[in-house]
Amino acid sequence: MPSSITSKLDKFRCMKRSISEINLDPLQRGGILTPEARAALVEWGDGYSVCDFCEGMLDRVRNPPVEEFVHEVLPQFLDVDDVRITHGAREGMYAAMHSLCDAGDYIVADGNAHYTTVLAAERAGLEISYVENSGEPEYTINPEGYRDAIRGIADQGYRVSLAVLTYPDGNYGNLVDARRVADICHEEGVPLLLNGAYSIGRMPVCARELDADIVVGSGHKSMASSGPIGVLGAKQEYADIIFRRSKSKKNKEVELLGCTVRGAGLLTMMASFPHVLERVGRWQEEVDKARWFSSELEALGIEQQGEKPHNHDLMFFKSEKLYEISKSARKGRYFLYHELKDRGICGIKPGLTRQFKLSTYLLPREDLERVVSAFQEIIEGSSKVQAE
Amino acid sequence: MPSSITSKLDKFRCMKRSISEINLDPLQRGGILTPEARAALVEWGDGYSVCDFCEGMLDRVRNPPVEEFVHEVLPQFLDVDDVRITHGAREGMYAAMHSLCDAGDYIVADGNAHYTTVLAAERAGLEISYVENSGEPEYTINPEGYRDAIRGIADQGYRVSLAVLTYPDGNYGNLVDARRVADICHEEGVPLLLNGAYSIGRMPVCARELDADIVVGSGHKSMASSGPIGVLGAKQEYADIIFRRSKSKKNKEVELLGCTVRGAGLLTMMASFPHVLERVGRWQEEVDKARWFSSELEALGIEQQGEKPHNHDLMFFKSEKLYEISKSARKGRYFLYHELKDRGICGIKPGLTRQFKLSTYLLPREDLERVVSAFQEIIEGSSKVQAE
Repeated sequence: MPSSITSKLDKFRCMKRSISEINLDPLQRGGILTPEARAALVEWGDGYSVCDFCEGMLDRVRNPPVEEFVHEVLPQFLDVDDVRITHGAREGMYAAMHSLCDAGDYIVADGNAHYTTVLAAERAGLEISYVENSGEPEYTINPEGYRDAIRGIADQGYRVSLAVLTYPDGNYGNLVDARRVADICHEEGVPLLLNGAYSIGRMPVCARELDADIVVGSGHKSMASSGPIGVLGAKQEYADIIFRRSKSKKNKEVELLGCTVRGAGLLTMMASFPHVLERVGRWQEEVDKARWFSSELEALGIEQQGEKPHNHDLMFFKSEKLYEISKSARKGRYFLYHELKDRGICGIKPGLTRQFKLSTYLLPREDLERVVSAFQEIIEGSSKVQAE
Repeated sequence: MPSSITSKLDKFRCMKRSISEINLDPLQRGGILTPEARAALVEWGDGYSVCDFCEGMLDRVRNPPVEEFVHEVLPQFLDVDDVRITHGAREGMYAAMHSLCDAGDYIVADGNAHYTTVLAAERAGLEISYVENSGEPEYTINPEGYRDAIRGIADQGYRVSLAVLTYPDGNYGNLVDARRVADICHEEGVPLLLNGAYSIGRMPVCARELDADIVVGSGHKSMASSGPIGVLGAKQEYADIIFRRSKSKKNKEVELLGCTVRGAGLLTMMASFPHVLERVGRWQEEVDKARWFSSELEALGIEQQGEKPHNHDLMFFKSEKLYEISKSARKGRYFLYHELKDRGICGIKPGLTRQFKLSTYLLPREDLERVVSAFQEIIEGSSKVQAE
């Protein structure tokens, strides 16, 4: 290895995560580890430590109790027939698309779908027909749009082999009537995959009640787990296909390449699970807090987009005021990022002022009051400067 | 959630990893974290903490220095044009097969290939033609076998779109002449993928020198990283295909579904890297130690299979003596597992006596002397019992 490289390596030895006290990034709010998960991470950190106890199938390891977690706890938690651990929600979507659809097929997805839905479909050789949202300000998805999209594609002579609903979507935090979407898809003969990356582990998600055929969740996004890790649940008829075993390696599942998260991440998900279950039971408190926060920002002229009253902690805001300030601010469009950072707040993407998303999930009300005050100071401070 | 489940959850809160002082499992020896990686795990454990610093492409994150690691350090380390982080060696193999081969194609693989090669091929819809090993006692692979296999498949009218060599294989620890295999494959117009799960991070692997077109490595197996994590390197012409970008999501790579290890695992690989580089430089010491250990066990009548003299820490042993003892032992075929466990040694699969694999990697000579003594005691103790 050339010395030009080796001389640079010292920086890898000690990398600090420098973030602010209050992190509003929706990506991060539901993935903060519990003390139990942090302990599991240290205990099981080495390589793929879980494999010491494996007799050929990861999901059948009895000690640590992986089998009980995967085959009893998670199916009851999601109310679905069969569950496996994946590398994340996107990998779960890909596994389902790759095994249930044929290259050249179409999927129908909500217009608010996460970019990974698009990538999973593209990787599986599928085309996408979108159910467009209603546009500003609510950006809602009409369940009837699924029927129109499915029929439209069928009319063109193509097969729609899967529908995807992002529940909620990652931009506006809108929760579409998933049961209605499922009913429509089933009437049209198409199975529904629910992408619960921002719901499973935050709020109650009952696959049977919603009649979702496949559900995916994200451990790092919403289950207090060290990523990458996710869950993939399916009704038996789809589970039999997605989790099919290899023709030649009898106890290995093809779509999972044998096994997925064979390390500490899985143990963090298990260790956090009692807390996750408990917090899901307190979901209404989080919704109430989000609504209160939204009303506080609206009082400052920062308008919440998406469903109102809102039903999720992930919210999208729009502010012409902040945009106007940015035009004359010394740091330009980066002023908001820096102003918030100076006040111990991060998580809104650097450079955004006119519209941005954030999450209030599990933040104490005092912290959110600090955020509201910060916005107030930033807006008022600027009008003072302009008045002088 | 029914109370029958909630009452069981307490066991998830504190799961201890109960393993012996000396772990001989080849899966585990190269994945033990460095102190620096352990610190990184705690610092970056939450969710997918790295994403706080991402502007759209994981491998372009500058702080922590992911970009430098992925685009400068790793390409130089592997001596290959382009590198990405994957969820593991198997996921790297699948990404390469899925993007370079068409369903219905054949791959040619060594008969000692890991089961995940088979799963990756099956998932990608590919058939496999094997280059069989030479059988007992060395189980070697003749590079010329690749020519025969490729021609044989072509003669049947099928396309061979990739060759795979497991370097070394995970059963016998044999290191085939990879350069010769590459030359033969290239003469036949087939690219070669080198599965370095047990070599990259342990011993020098120079893709350019071996003329491998694609290389995969395993962070949890051989790079002192918290799994699942791996590396995937390729010559530019193949990298352009494997790492192609999405048609509609311009800065996202399709085959990686945008990004892969978006959490602490990546930071452990980076934090361990200075140590990994240093230990690769001391590889000959590990080979010498493995040879010495092999000769000690052979003196006890436990025969090493695979290449001799051996060139890797992963070794396969055969013992009719231990098998004979197991026939009359109180714990039957589990006696060896328990006898070793009583002496603070684990890593040989429970139930095996007649043949088993183990690794001496990074174990101090004193520990290995303890292992040799343990085998001696077990064998001699049994003959004493029989003599009495």
